Amino acid sequence: MESPLRIAQLAPVIYPVPPRGTGGTERVVSDLTEALMAMGHDVTLIAPSDSVTTARHLSAHPSLSALQAYHGPVAPGVPAALEAVQLGLLARHLATFDIVHCHGEFAHAAVLGDRIGHSLTTVHWRLDELDRKLFFHSFPDLPVAAISAAQARDLPRANRAGVVHHGIPTDRFRPGPGGGGVAFVGRMTDQKRPDAAIRVARAAGRPIRLAGGIDVGNPRYFAEQVVPLLGEDAVHVGEIDDRAKQGLLGEAAALLFPIDWPEPFGLVMIEAMACGTPVIAWDRGSVREVVDPGVTGFIVRSEDEAVAALAMIGTIDRAGVRERFEARFTAARMAEDYVAIYRKLLTPR
Amino acid sequence: MESPLRIAQLAPVIYPVPPRGTGGTERVVSDLTEALMAMGHDVTLIAPSDSVTTARHLSAHPSLSALQAYHGPVAPGVPAALEAVQLGLLARHLATFDIVHCHGEFAHAAVLGDRIGHSLTTVHWRLDELDRKLFFHSFPDLPVAAISAAQARDLPRANRAGVVHHGIPTDRFRPGPGGGGVAFVGRMTDQKRPDAAIRVARAAGRPIRLAGGIDVGNPRYFAEQVVPLLGEDAVHVGEIDDRAKQGLLGEAAALLFPIDWPEPFGLVMIEAMACGTPVIAWDRGSVREVVDPGVTGFIVRSEDEAVAALAMIGTIDRAGVRERFEARFTAARMAEDYVAIYRKLLTPR
Repeated sequence: MESPLRIAQLAPVIYPVPPRGTGGTERVVSDLTEALMAMGHDVTLIAPSDSVTTARHLSAHPSLSALQAYHGPVAPGVPAALEAVQLGLLARHLATFDIVHCHGEFAHAAVLGDRIGHSLTTVHWRLDELDRKLFFHSFPDLPVAAISAAQARDLPRANRAGVVHHGIPTDRFRPGPGGGGVAFVGRMTDQKRPDAAIRVARAAGRPIRLAGGIDVGNPRYFAEQVVPLLGEDAVHVGEIDDRAKQGLLGEAAALLFPIDWPEPFGLVMIEAMACGTPVIAWDRGSVREVVDPGVTGFIVRSEDEAVAALAMIGTIDRAGVRERFEARFTAARMAEDYVAIYRKLLTPR
Repeated sequence: MESPLRIAQLAPVIYPVPPRGTGGTERVVSDLTEALMAMGHDVTLIAPSDSVTTARHLSAHPSLSALQAYHGPVAPGVPAALEAVQLGLLARHLATFDIVHCHGEFAHAAVLGDRIGHSLTTVHWRLDELDRKLFFHSFPDLPVAAISAAQARDLPRANRAGVVHHGIPTDRFRPGPGGGGVAFVGRMTDQKRPDAAIRVARAAGRPIRLAGGIDVGNPRYFAEQVVPLLGEDAVHVGEIDDRAKQGLLGEAAALLFPIDWPEPFGLVMIEAMACGTPVIAWDRGSVREVVDPGVTGFIVRSEDEAVAALAMIGTIDRAGVRERFEARFTAARMAEDYVAIYRKLLTPR
């Protein structure tokens, strides 16, 4: 057996790890940390003080969300101050880790110094915008793991250290019975397109339940494009926890995923699969890598194709969906993939 | 003579150094850099690529303002990406400097490592908010120069490395003739209170000219509190350059400075003094340290007191105002003060 590694996981400062509600990145950092612990590694989680972990925990301050809950609105510099303090912790302990896995942007790259080659950065967002372009261009020796091959295409070759799809613990969701209706889970934004989901469900004659918060950056989209479509057969249940998500996804015939942006991964697709629920997803970003057509769902290019796919959804075996989830998208598999990259980075060249 | 120092000046990433328009911090960094060069030091300016300096210049990317001028609106992560890249430059060259003087927040503190004691940070903003509190609390060994004794009171004792008032080159402004009207220069915000300036001028029977941009964060203040007060005797001339400022300040009987916040320094007060123009300032923040009552202006606590001070403004000798400016607020004096702190930090304890 190979020897255990001393691994640091550096989380963002916005939410605790794991998050109480919103916070996809923090959820992944938590699942990865616990899976690495289960593998027997020596893991240190550098994360806000309101985090909970079985790993060693280094923290200086509560998360931004905890500070806001306590103080109300805070000065605009608080996130940057929290990040600087967390990076100070990283800098002081840098020599005690074999590998540092960073999940935030961007200043960690300047703190890593000559240990940059023994670090791995996961960017949990699209990579095709100016901020990431400037950043990667200036740190060509920063190893970066993409969360999908689609996301990796926007990464300079020099930075590419591998692709690791997300995973979740096998017991977070259990196979559900399915049902006649369909589900949508995601923020109410024109990137996620709940309006398209409602039109497809209605055209297919199926009720739809939609879960997800309203985008504070663009509340007009929800008010103008979604609310007018809601009705008895299309209800918005707001933000939901895992328990409610189990019901929403597990009792649906399918998850509709009508994304209209370069989705870097799309965690809700594998959450649906964990419930045995097939996914009807639009052909953007990571979708071709996550959905196995005919096995875990269908990939479509239009609302008409989605309606047709819904008519065929009975051909998908729900037990087979869950099986494929267990084979491809568990947190244990994610942790093993990351450890393989860590070991490659640690191999002298 | 003492030997020259190898000094790095680390600028923010928002505007070039010096700035084309807005950018008080960048103006100070530029004036300090050039004054240190004039003293014979070996100075490296780490600043956006659109900066101009006689010092060695390290840069990776243009300023945020230049990127916005070229691309239009940019992704929200761009400032943080630019800062990370600039900090990467600092990290790579850290060993080549005797002292690093940082004018931005916050992540530089994590990059300095064991050289933190040979660094100096100037914060060009109020220090009494949560972001700075969290930051200083977590970096007790970070030496910080306050820009006024008033600002220093909000700094933990452990961080206090000294107080250095700003200064400007003696030839930027020249003594002006004065006149019957008064001037206001500053952003149109309820911290700077142009509305109070207009009421005071009108009560004193003097015309007022106001210069300064509208606060994008709070445009309603200008629309609701200032615009209704404008008239033939109270005109807003918008943002102005130094040439226009020479006219506005030099031809005024006084600068009104009715601040309603803990002003950390207030550069426009010394710009007025450089024009020989006395200052009528409200008793907040740095004002008691900058205005010498009866010599360079008056310190007041209300609009009534300001009207009374205006009635006495003829008792102030404009040549004496300029003299006091030259004695207290030149860039050369600022640079000498900073070098004294640098040398103290470099003295083994």
